[in-house]
This record gives sequence, C-alpha cells and structure tokens, in this order.
Amino acid sequence: MVKDSYLVGLIGAGIGPSLSPALHEREADRQGLRYLYRLIDIDALGVAPEAVGDLVRAARDLGFDGLNITHPCKQLVIEHLDGLAPQAEALGAVNTVVFDGGGRAIGHNTDVTGFAASFARGLPDARLERVVQLGAGGAGAAVAHALLTLGAGSVTVVDALPDRAASLAAGLNRQFGAGRADAGGPERLAALLAGADGVVHATPTGMAAHPGLPFAVELLRPSLWVAEVVYRPLETELLRVARGVGCAVLDGGGMAVFQAADAFRLFTGREADASRMLVDISELAGSLRAGT
Amino acid sequence: MVKDSYLVGLIGAGIGPSLSPALHEREADRQGLRYLYRLIDIDALGVAPEAVGDLVRAARDLGFDGLNITHPCKQLVIEHLDGLAPQAEALGAVNTVVFDGGGRAIGHNTDVTGFAASFARGLPDARLERVVQLGAGGAGAAVAHALLTLGAGSVTVVDALPDRAASLAAGLNRQFGAGRADAGGPERLAALLAGADGVVHATPTGMAAHPGLPFAVELLRPSLWVAEVVYRPLETELLRVARGVGCAVLDGGGMAVFQAADAFRLFTGREADASRMLVDISELAGSLRAGT
Repeated sequence: MVKDSYLVGLIGAGIGPSLSPALHEREADRQGLRYLYRLIDIDALGVAPEAVGDLVRAARDLGFDGLNITHPCKQLVIEHLDGLAPQAEALGAVNTVVFDGGGRAIGHNTDVTGFAASFARGLPDARLERVVQLGAGGAGAAVAHALLTLGAGSVTVVDALPDRAASLAAGLNRQFGAGRADAGGPERLAALLAGADGVVHATPTGMAAHPGLPFAVELLRPSLWVAEVVYRPLETELLRVARGVGCAVLDGGGMAVFQAADAFRLFTGREADASRMLVDISELAGSLRAGT
Repeated sequence: MVKDSYLVGLIGAGIGPSLSPALHEREADRQGLRYLYRLIDIDALGVAPEAVGDLVRAARDLGFDGLNITHPCKQLVIEHLDGLAPQAEALGAVNTVVFDGGGRAIGHNTDVTGFAASFARGLPDARLERVVQLGAGGAGAAVAHALLTLGAGSVTVVDALPDRAASLAAGLNRQFGAGRADAGGPERLAALLAGADGVVHATPTGMAAHPGLPFAVELLRPSLWVAEVVYRPLETELLRVARGVGCAVLDGGGMAVFQAADAFRLFTGREADASRMLVDISELAGSLRAGT
C-alpha cells in the first residue's frame, strides 16, 4: 500500500527556531505528499531529557511515521528503540527514528551521511590527508565519522574539554583503525593547522547566540579548506574571513540539508531533491548560501 | 498568528473504516491548509478505554491541535479535560477536544449540532410535535438533545434496554422541562409510531455488520418522516423501504458531515463548506446520498 500521508516530528530542547519543519514540508509539497512536521520541545513541555522514551512511544501510538531527535536526546533515546542501523550503532547516537509497520522503532543517524554528502558535493577536490576538527560534541562525533568514512588519512580532534576529545579519538581509532584519529587541546591548534589540509569547525561559535571566531584569523591560509557545521547564519564570521583569505569553504547548510534529505527518504521511501532543498535553506536561513 | 498547519485525530475503538480523515482532509485541501487527521484506535493499540486520558495528554504534548472522540471514550474523556462547552456539559459526552494556546483541553459536542443542522437542512418542513426515537445510546442521546433543541414537542425514546431509555428521558426532562421526553419498550413501538409525526433511527441496525430492519415495514406510512443516524451505507434498508412507502427521509450522512464541519471549525477557526462535504461523503460511502 502506498501511504498517502506522513506525520513526523523533532524531539529536542530549545528547538523553536529549527528549519527542519520547513525543509521537510517544502520538499513534501513539491512531491505532492500530505506531510506534517511537528516540533516537540522538551523545554517547552517542561520535561527532562529522559522523557524522550515516553515521547517516542506516544508518537508511535498516535500515528507518527518517524521522528528526528536532537540535543540532548540523541544518546538517551537509544535504550528505548527496537533496533539500530549500523551508522547509528557505530556512532552511538540517533538523530532519526523510523516506526515500521509492526510498530518497531529503528534508530538511524543521518548526520554522518548528511555531512559526508555535503562535503563530497561542496569540496569534491579537497585533500584529506590531515584534517583538524574543532569540537568533539555530538555534531563533532558525526563529522569525524563522516571524514574517516570519506577516506581522511587522519583526523585530529581539538576540544576545550581534553577528555571529550580523547574519548572521541579513542573510539574512532577502535572503529577505523589505530592512528586514524588523535586528540589535542586548543594550545596545539596553531601547530596542527600549520600542517593540515583543512579544518572542520564543529562548535557553536558563530551562531547568533555565540558570535565571533573560533580561532585567530592569522591561522588561516589560502591552501587550507574550511568546513563549517553552523548553518544559522549560513555565512558565519569564520566563513566570511576564510573566504577573504582565499580558502575553499563549505557552509553548514549542506549538512543540514543532506541529513534532512536522508531522513525524508527514511520516513517516506522517496528520494528528496537536495538541490532544491539547498535553495530552500538559503531562503529560510535569510542569507545567501556560501559556495566554495 | 495565523496557523499554517493542523494536526488532529480520532480516538476510539474499531475506527479503521472511519470516513473522518477523508472528510476533514478533503475540505482542508480545498482551503489550502496543511491538515493531517490520524486514527488512534485503542483496539489496535491494545489499551483499555480508560487510556483515553493518557492519549489526550500525549496528543497535546506532541503538537496535536485537537481530537475527535468516539465510542467508547465519549464519557470517559471528560474527567481528563480542563473545561466543557455548554453543549457537551448538557449531554455529558464529548466528541471533540480542542487544545487552546495555553495547552488547556476543552471538550465540545458536535454530534448535537451536527444532527440539528442536518435535520434543519434535510427535513425543513417536518412536523415535530411528536417524535419517536429508536435507540438510547450515545448517538441517541445526542439526537434527542438536538430534537428538543430544534423545538420538538415531545420525544419518546424506545430502547431494548428499558433502564437506558428511562434514564435518558429523565435527563431530557430535567434539562428541557417536564413532559418533553418519555421512554418506552419495543412492545409499545407500533402504538407510538401510529401517533407520531416522525421517527429517528439511532441504533446500529442497518450497518453493514448489522443488516436488516429495526422494525416491521407495516409500521411505516407516507405521512411519517424517517431520519437515520447510520451512514454506512447511506441508503440503509430502512431508508430504502421508507422511500418506497413514500416517506420523507433523511440519511445519516448529513449528521456525519455537519458534526465534522463543526469540529473542523473548532479546530481551525474556519468555516467548512458542508455542501461540498456532502458530495464527498456520497463518494466516500460508495453510494448515492439519499435525499428527501
């Protein structure tokens, strides 16, 4: 039976400004689907992140087809699911839950595939021998997995919390092979960037609530590519400066779009047209999408 | 703020064949609204009717705008609501719950207004001095309230369960004034119909699962109008026979449509076009709509 309507949502904290409803619904409208994307904000509901299990069960019972999951529930949700796709299991984080016909809830992670697709599209000729990544949080973990999946020689994770960086690097080495990942503190950043092919920025710096630059402008040079995870605004201070220096750059809109496109496919069984969604996010983010 | 999308549903038992999703969604599509109507079947979920309170709270938390409620939850839901509209309070039954902006759940009953609107439209010249009604269940209670609201002189409720009929009649007399309602057993039906202006049939007889006639054909005569609550099929055996006798008849599709139209207005703040929805239900019920 071809389903004729889709009900999905996003569970997380402080998600009011999310662009996901508009990204999904615009694509669904172009495909002629009845599709509704609801925000389920645990802050607005006044419940703890641990309530994610109850919310997932309720969503299944009330006829949702699937859910996106974001901070701070991506790990917490796992124990409440009936199965995990390999990508989600490897990362230990779920950003997409699909209810199958029998009511089973299966966890996926489209942040990994989303960043990989965006990178392959936006920086197809980038060298990946030595990559530096700022930020070892949830987005950072997904990006690092994506970089190594794309064939990066090594990824060095830099985080203000050294233990978090070391833990991520250790996990990456277990999964992708010894020596593929390393960890460092911010004091090593200048030396690391001097020897790197490119840098991925995966901290909140540059978002509207955290303006500014994540590191000194002087560390940029034209041969260093710069990829950004922040997508609101699409043109962060880091990207603006890097573009001025002459770096090849990738904004965070691509990752946002491709993770949404992959979730859309999991929810509906239909391919989403990412190129049209990239136009959407440019309009929705209120800024021109930064190219390379 | 003008809302641009609506998420609603129906809670009840064995509701798989309900026409409500299609009725609501077709009208919403004509109005250009993003509108999704989900069935929440307690039988399919394997939960007791008493779970309606949890389901209503979950629906509010997950972003539903409102719910329809049907058998066997129309009374059970009341204790879980934050307020009742007068019609629902008078009837002691809720078929529509609306979540207001502050998360409060208010109960309404559009079965009463739905039957009244359908009757006024379909049998505008019908005499209402003495009306006989078969069936004192949930639909019967709503219809009796509607008939007395429309100005019926008296309504005599006939039910195979005498206590149920007597209880309904007593409640009607308290609300509309002594002598407006009476109760009787099936053995009095012939005498009652002989002196009546019209009869409303509000039992399941004539539905696909309960084929047949609710009383003997010989009790019909051309001057007796016949109104039906069953709407699947629209043309019940009772209506077919009554039409043959020469009775003015009203099928159950009108009540189904007007209760849906009233619920649509409560959910969205917009008027539904009932005349277009009457065409829809004719198509959806797979039969021509019976007129007068």
